Amino acid sequence: MKRKLRYGMVGGGQNAFIGAVHRMAANLDGQIELVAGAFSSDPKNSKLTGEQLFLNPKRVYGSYEEMAKAEAALPADERIDFVSIVTPNFLHAPVATTFLKAGFHVVCDKPMTLTLKEAKALRETVRKSGKVFALTHNYTGYPMVKEARELVRSGRLGKILKVVAEYPQGWLLDKIEAEGQKQASWRMDPKKAGSSSCVGDIGTHAENLGRYITGLRIDSLCAEFTSFIPGRKLEDDANLLLRYKGGAKGVLHCSQISCGEENNLNIRVYGTKGSLAWQQEHPNELKFIAKGEPAKILRRGNNYVGDAAKKFTRLPFGHPEAFIEAFANIYLEAIAAIRASIEGRRGTFDFPTVDDGVYGMAFLETAVKSAAFDARWTKFVEA
Amino acid sequence: MKRKLRYGMVGGGQNAFIGAVHRMAANLDGQIELVAGAFSSDPKNSKLTGEQLFLNPKRVYGSYEEMAKAEAALPADERIDFVSIVTPNFLHAPVATTFLKAGFHVVCDKPMTLTLKEAKALRETVRKSGKVFALTHNYTGYPMVKEARELVRSGRLGKILKVVAEYPQGWLLDKIEAEGQKQASWRMDPKKAGSSSCVGDIGTHAENLGRYITGLRIDSLCAEFTSFIPGRKLEDDANLLLRYKGGAKGVLHCSQISCGEENNLNIRVYGTKGSLAWQQEHPNELKFIAKGEPAKILRRGNNYVGDAAKKFTRLPFGHPEAFIEAFANIYLEAIAAIRASIEGRRGTFDFPTVDDGVYGMAFLETAVKSAAFDARWTKFVEA
Amino acid sequence: MKRKLRYGMVGGGQNAFIGAVHRMAANLDGQIELVAGAFSSDPKNSKLTGEQLFLNPKRVYGSYEEMAKAEAALPADERIDFVSIVTPNFLHAPVATTFLKAGFHVVCDKPMTLTLKEAKALRETVRKSGKVFALTHNYTGYPMVKEARELVRSGRLGKILKVVAEYPQGWLLDKIEAEGQKQASWRMDPKKAGSSSCVGDIGTHAENLGRYITGLRIDSLCAEFTSFIPGRKLEDDANLLLRYKGGAKGVLHCSQISCGEENNLNIRVYGTKGSLAWQQEHPNELKFIAKGEPAKILRRGNNYVGDAAKKFTRLPFGHPEAFIEAFANIYLEAIAAIRASIEGRRGTFDFPTVDDGVYGMAFLETAVKSAAFDARWTKFVEA
Amino acid sequence: MKRKLRYGMVGGGQNAFIGAVHRMAANLDGQIELVAGAFSSDPKNSKLTGEQLFLNPKRVYGSYEEMAKAEAALPADERIDFVSIVTPNFLHAPVATTFLKAGFHVVCDKPMTLTLKEAKALRETVRKSGKVFALTHNYTGYPMVKEARELVRSGRLGKILKVVAEYPQGWLLDKIEAEGQKQASWRMDPKKAGSSSCVGDIGTHAENLGRYITGLRIDSLCAEFTSFIPGRKLEDDANLLLRYKGGAKGVLHCSQISCGEENNLNIRVYGTKGSLAWQQEHPNELKFIAKGEPAKILRRGNNYVGDAAKKFTRLPFGHPEAFIEAFANIYLEAIAAIRASIEGRRGTFDFPTVDDGVYGMAFLETAVKSAAFDARWTKFVEA
Repeated sequence: MKRKLRYGMVGGGQNAFIGAVHRMAANLDGQIELVAGAFSSDPKNSKLTGEQLFLNPKRVYGSYEEMAKAEAALPADERIDFVSIVTPNFLHAPVATTFLKAGFHVVCDKPMTLTLKEAKALRETVRKSGKVFALTHNYTGYPMVKEARELVRSGRLGKILKVVAEYPQGWLLDKIEAEGQKQASWRMDPKKAGSSSCVGDIGTHAENLGRYITGLRIDSLCAEFTSFIPGRKLEDDANLLLRYKGGAKGVLHCSQISCGEENNLNIRVYGTKGSLAWQQEHPNELKFIAKGEPAKILRRGNNYVGDAAKKFTRLPFGHPEAFIEAFANIYLEAIAAIRASIEGRRGTFDFPTVDDGVYGMAFLETAVKSAAFDARWTKFVEA
Repeated sequence: MKRKLRYGMVGGGQNAFIGAVHRMAANLDGQIELVAGAFSSDPKNSKLTGEQLFLNPKRVYGSYEEMAKAEAALPADERIDFVSIVTPNFLHAPVATTFLKAGFHVVCDKPMTLTLKEAKALRETVRKSGKVFALTHNYTGYPMVKEARELVRSGRLGKILKVVAEYPQGWLLDKIEAEGQKQASWRMDPKKAGSSSCVGDIGTHAENLGRYITGLRIDSLCAEFTSFIPGRKLEDDANLLLRYKGGAKGVLHCSQISCGEENNLNIRVYGTKGSLAWQQEHPNELKFIAKGEPAKILRRGNNYVGDAAKKFTRLPFGHPEAFIEAFANIYLEAIAAIRASIEGRRGTFDFPTVDDGVYGMAFLETAVKSAAFDARWTKFVEA
Repeated sequence: MKRKLRYGMVGGGQNAFIGAVHRMAANLDGQIELVAGAFSSDPKNSKLTGEQLFLNPKRVYGSYEEMAKAEAALPADERIDFVSIVTPNFLHAPVATTFLKAGFHVVCDKPMTLTLKEAKALRETVRKSGKVFALTHNYTGYPMVKEARELVRSGRLGKILKVVAEYPQGWLLDKIEAEGQKQASWRMDPKKAGSSSCVGDIGTHAENLGRYITGLRIDSLCAEFTSFIPGRKLEDDANLLLRYKGGAKGVLHCSQISCGEENNLNIRVYGTKGSLAWQQEHPNELKFIAKGEPAKILRRGNNYVGDAAKKFTRLPFGHPEAFIEAFANIYLEAIAAIRASIEGRRGTFDFPTVDDGVYGMAFLETAVKSAAFDARWTKFVEA
Repeated sequence: MKRKLRYGMVGGGQNAFIGAVHRMAANLDGQIELVAGAFSSDPKNSKLTGEQLFLNPKRVYGSYEEMAKAEAALPADERIDFVSIVTPNFLHAPVATTFLKAGFHVVCDKPMTLTLKEAKALRETVRKSGKVFALTHNYTGYPMVKEARELVRSGRLGKILKVVAEYPQGWLLDKIEAEGQKQASWRMDPKKAGSSSCVGDIGTHAENLGRYITGLRIDSLCAEFTSFIPGRKLEDDANLLLRYKGGAKGVLHCSQISCGEENNLNIRVYGTKGSLAWQQEHPNELKFIAKGEPAKILRRGNNYVGDAAKKFTRLPFGHPEAFIEAFANIYLEAIAAIRASIEGRRGTFDFPTVDDGVYGMAFLETAVKSAAFDARWTKFVEA
């Protein structure tokens, strides 16, 4: 197939954050072109955004419903191959459903939906559609995260005993939602963000990262939510203890009010034969310690790293890659699946799916439930 | 008082670990001399240890009871001023009680006793004796820990919201107590170590460090204990959620089976105006971040650090100090108190007291209780 | 101007390295599209590369001369706006000259030419052409390098006394050019690389970085070149002492045979009032120490960094940016200049120019000369 | 020999720095006791120092000559076994000579003498005396420095190609000698410090460290000295290029005016098979990279480190050791040699000798000579 894939975007207008990230990630490898969009519920914003992105004004739409309908009506060699959904959480499910039903593949930001119920319905829609659905748990796109997974899978850590996952941020230490800061406002609004702010926004990333690397699934959990800043309806900090199936234990804590923390997602995994540690803010390195041996600092781009990491590496060692490249790796795999679908091929691809989204929503609802009962231990039920 | 203080030691014979540390700490500043000891329940070991320490053989005793009695019978200008107790946990209380009643000041390793009940009794004995009792929670002797406390006290962190304290080790990942390794054997034996291994041995340090720096006191906790290595009677790993009085929240986890971890005690404290982070393995540095400002790396020995840190600093900046020096700082303060006591002076000293020991045992018993009830939230009652 | 800029590429076929980097950098921001290329002297390679890049086969050319001619003959709304030159060094000057004379703007990799003489001739050609010429000293595109320059300019370091710039790599420790490794082969071939390998390839980056940050210009230097690996005609390691005009001193060393080093460009600048340190492999951080104060770790994306860094920042703090983003910043400024030129506007732009290229070649030739005379101190003459 | 060794100290009164370090180092292991001293040329200072050290006033002397004479006259079981010389540089040779001739072993601070001539004379005196002479190049006492040496000796780095040694400090950025700061005053006074300040005080440590680890000996050097602070008679910064016998190359730079640097001695050694890196401010770690493999972080106290490091380790892994312990390791070896001498035994010991002192002075004079001739390459002649 000698052409770039075409996509449209829902969300991502002026003052949005994640839309621009998706666009840079989609641009990076020259495999995808943006040709359409419904960037904002505000038509002016949407139009302006379309202009800045050099889009044909006819394909800058006033609503996602209009976009789905109009694009579906275009000839096959013009219309979008897939849509990227980068709206606040509450719109993920309706937009995704609309486009899936209109025959489009979907790339969707996380958390997947507002509720677990919605997530399960979306899973059903995806299954029926036969379309590709990719969820941008972008941190699993980092090469050294893939290397971490390979270390675990290869048995070099032995049986996993303990997982410590952290995701502290500090950007909501001040009540900036009260000052109209857009990113903060919807994240602290239960109607737009759902039943959780901190765990929904970042705790789910930490959970997903741990599951991606270790394959462990949760048996039960104890979640303490706190809204430190007065007046908030949703938690801005959460500390969880986890019991995994098979006996491993976990600590997961995340925060939006940890002064001075930027985006410090990090994970340590301890097994009977070895341990590993990875930090998102220094993503090109992975620390691995085999029992009784010196710590090894594995660095992206070296011959000694495994194939999974190598496949998602663009630059030689010492030329650092970072957030956008990891994000682009999710796109690369999603579009590989989309190309395969278009060409009627089968394949195995490495990106977060609708099942990951359902699991993540089940995790989130279990945590919310535990927190609601004063941090009571609560059974995790896979949905 | 123009003389060195004289001390004796109970415990610390061949193959022991912490006894040698106490001796180096006591030696360092040339203020104290070792003149007597009951180093082991094995008389040969005790004798050999005494020889290697150049002691007068007459003052190397077969038992601590004998030592207390004989030393008390010596002339005032010969007998020891204080005793250092460096035995396994179960002997702390009886030895301390014996020496206190014989009129000696006491420096004692931690955890203070086997049980809270014993701890309270010891507190009573100390009070009645009028003697100095210092507990070697040595990590509070680090200058940059004192600096951390000063930052909190001065209000530069604002109101404390969250505390994350970790103490992972990995040395008990193999069941070395089954191979007769001395340090491991008593720590995993409930008769000698008490009702806890991991929390008693190192979790109490993490608790003490957090309390020393923040002044926060626990309201309730949820403690999950795990014995990962089959056959162990005591936990080798523990994860705790803490609720502090006043609303702050805490995460405290410690481990003896975290592969590759050495002695990685570390703490992060987040407040409304700033945060700090300190790691025991890099003790000369303290990270402080004021809200909205770049992280500052405060380093021991610089003019900009406060008086508390300066007072306990021996070397100029860039000439690292470490574990022994911090330990020696506890000794320096303890003997300052002992000198004051001898000379009938009053004063304020900065070392962990019998009250810290009681608090620590209450913490330990609360954690044990929570863990016993499947990690149920349990009220902390100050004893 | 509501359109993307169009560019063509010379070099960058299969097995090349830097061509792909340029393409990702050009793609990232969605401002530029690749529409033509002469990717290799091997027509098959060139054709295949064009296909993989989804190019119109008519605009994949067999030679750069053909490309310049054909593109110049296209209508204005089709032909390329500029060319990116990513060939081995010896082709930079002829290709650039050809395209400048054909009326195109140029983005060119470094070192600019094979010789200083060539460099001066190219400068003359650029001046006469009135076209934009940007040299991809990409490391100056990092936001925290721009912050470093601002710190110096603002006087916060006082008068600069000493600069230590290092660029150690280890990838040529084995004689891989003898095994046909393409990157190594031309870099160790004087006909293609010029009179220097290590200093030409990476030492010039270190020099450029130092000059960009400090503004210091060299008075004289002493350069020791070594070819550690037998049979090499060019140096694989170089150590230089520098005297700057105004009295500051410098140490600059670079290496291709430093085992285990990846791409460890780093710089420290010491002034009378403060110092700074930056490492390319951890590019989001800049250490700044004001005299008598704690080190401050300035991190990209925070409000406290200056406008120059902010302007070239795409992601919020804690979401790391890296090599490609820095490279793309050079492109952003170059195309801003090109747009201004097209639109007849004037402006000030922040990218390395042909003057930087001439300075770099003068530096290189001075170093080669010093080395040739057994590392004799040699006067630097600005060309 | 069942007794502590007895020593006296020359220098080290009030306001001195290194005397207190020597005393702590000597105290640490309980093998040595201080019994005499001539602490200052100021008798009051000397007397007060003696009191604070709990010395018998009769053995606190008014001059070193008096001390040597009086101690020699004491009975064998009372008099000192050795003297520690911790005066400013200009007194090292006369004091050492006096005590050696009086029959005492000597521990002496560095640089060994004021001039190379003096150094060679002292070497002769030591040889004739048959006494132990230890020079406190204390940084070679660090266990991980010994590990570094073992790595080189074992061939794991292959043939050494390049050595980069740095020793930046910043404490003399202000002209504090003009304000009477004692440490600064004598170091900037040619009569007391000799022909060099920066290289004599710290550059010699960097040279010694490199030689200790690699065994390489210098063939020639090029040294640029700078006195950045107006009015200084001696250099406060020096940059050197080194050529080693056998073809390796070196960069050595040191500074007293590098703002924000504390005591940042560090070294990197690159060989054909591997490299290592060590930093004095983080002394418990040693980075080792075998060609093509991940960096290994070797940490003191682990089983995997070699015997040389193990022998000089007091604490388990993760319990950091630092400057004083390293210093004490020099003492431990020196007194092992002294005990052997007293007991008529032979042995091999690991401490810097008078030969190291002569080499260091030859290095220093070669550097001074090179600097005097405008940083001309100068042949190094072993003395």
